[in-house]
Amino acid sequence: MAKFKSFMEEALSEARKAAKREEVPVGAVIVNQYGLIVAKAGNRIRELSDPTAHAEILTIRQACKDKKSERLDGYRIYVTLEPCNMCLHAILNAKISKLYYGASDTSKALKISNILSENLCQKDFPLEIYPNINEDESEKLLKAFFLAKR
Amino acid sequence: MAKFKSFMEEALSEARKAAKREEVPVGAVIVNQYGLIVAKAGNRIRELSDPTAHAEILTIRQACKDKKSERLDGYRIYVTLEPCNMCLHAILNAKISKLYYGASDTSKALKISNILSENLCQKDFPLEIYPNINEDESEKLLKAFFLAKR
Repeated sequence: MAKFKSFMEEALSEARKAAKREEVPVGAVIVNQYGLIVAKAGNRIRELSDPTAHAEILTIRQACKDKKSERLDGYRIYVTLEPCNMCLHAILNAKISKLYYGASDTSKALKISNILSENLCQKDFPLEIYPNINEDESEKLLKAFFLAKR
Repeated sequence: MAKFKSFMEEALSEARKAAKREEVPVGAVIVNQYGLIVAKAGNRIRELSDPTAHAEILTIRQACKDKKSERLDGYRIYVTLEPCNMCLHAILNAKISKLYYGASDTSKALKISNILSENLCQKDFPLEIYPNINEDESEKLLKAFFLAKR
């Protein structure tokens, strides 16, 4: 299995654990420049009563804390769902180099490409983006979750 | 002194404390529906090695934790500087009702008004925005900080 697929598998595993906690099933994994996983998390918004406790932000905070730095240049993040705008900008603020994501967020009006083309810090720290990695599995999880909520 | 000016004074006091910690001097205060301050913070990005530790996010996390809810509808946030896109979306995610800010961020390419007009959740939770509150004092703090850094 391609390496990026196995990292997305880890992110999907975090998403499944999030669903069991009654959180929207989104998971994320951060990998350092040596290809080692340095942080993984699923959403914990309800559990922590924290609207910023999205999988991406939890992994960024963990990876930065361990690295004792607020910058993760050279690192990659794998997320099961296209990041919301808060998380996309957290990824940019952290200077992460590559973003891999699974399902596209069809509810997002402002597309990532528009945001990035307007983002001044992109000049110095361009973010490479790889969408649609294992997107079927991610969509299946999200659909099952929201169907059960109805 | 008008009430909103006194809340911005509190936010400015947090910004001054941030400058003393060698952080970009931005401060924020969250006020509940009864006009009581429920959280205040300045930036702690470097201190915590956390690129998400902006004043706004720290106050949102604190207020939500104390309220045991990930939603702050009816609450107001006062920030000394126009929020960055990460923080603006955190404010939207938290369903905060009113945003008061001081200085405008001239480096921002994507203006708040554009973002809000594209934001679908605005329909259900419109965010009222009041810019330029005590902006001179906020600008003075920021300029002094960046001048000293050169």
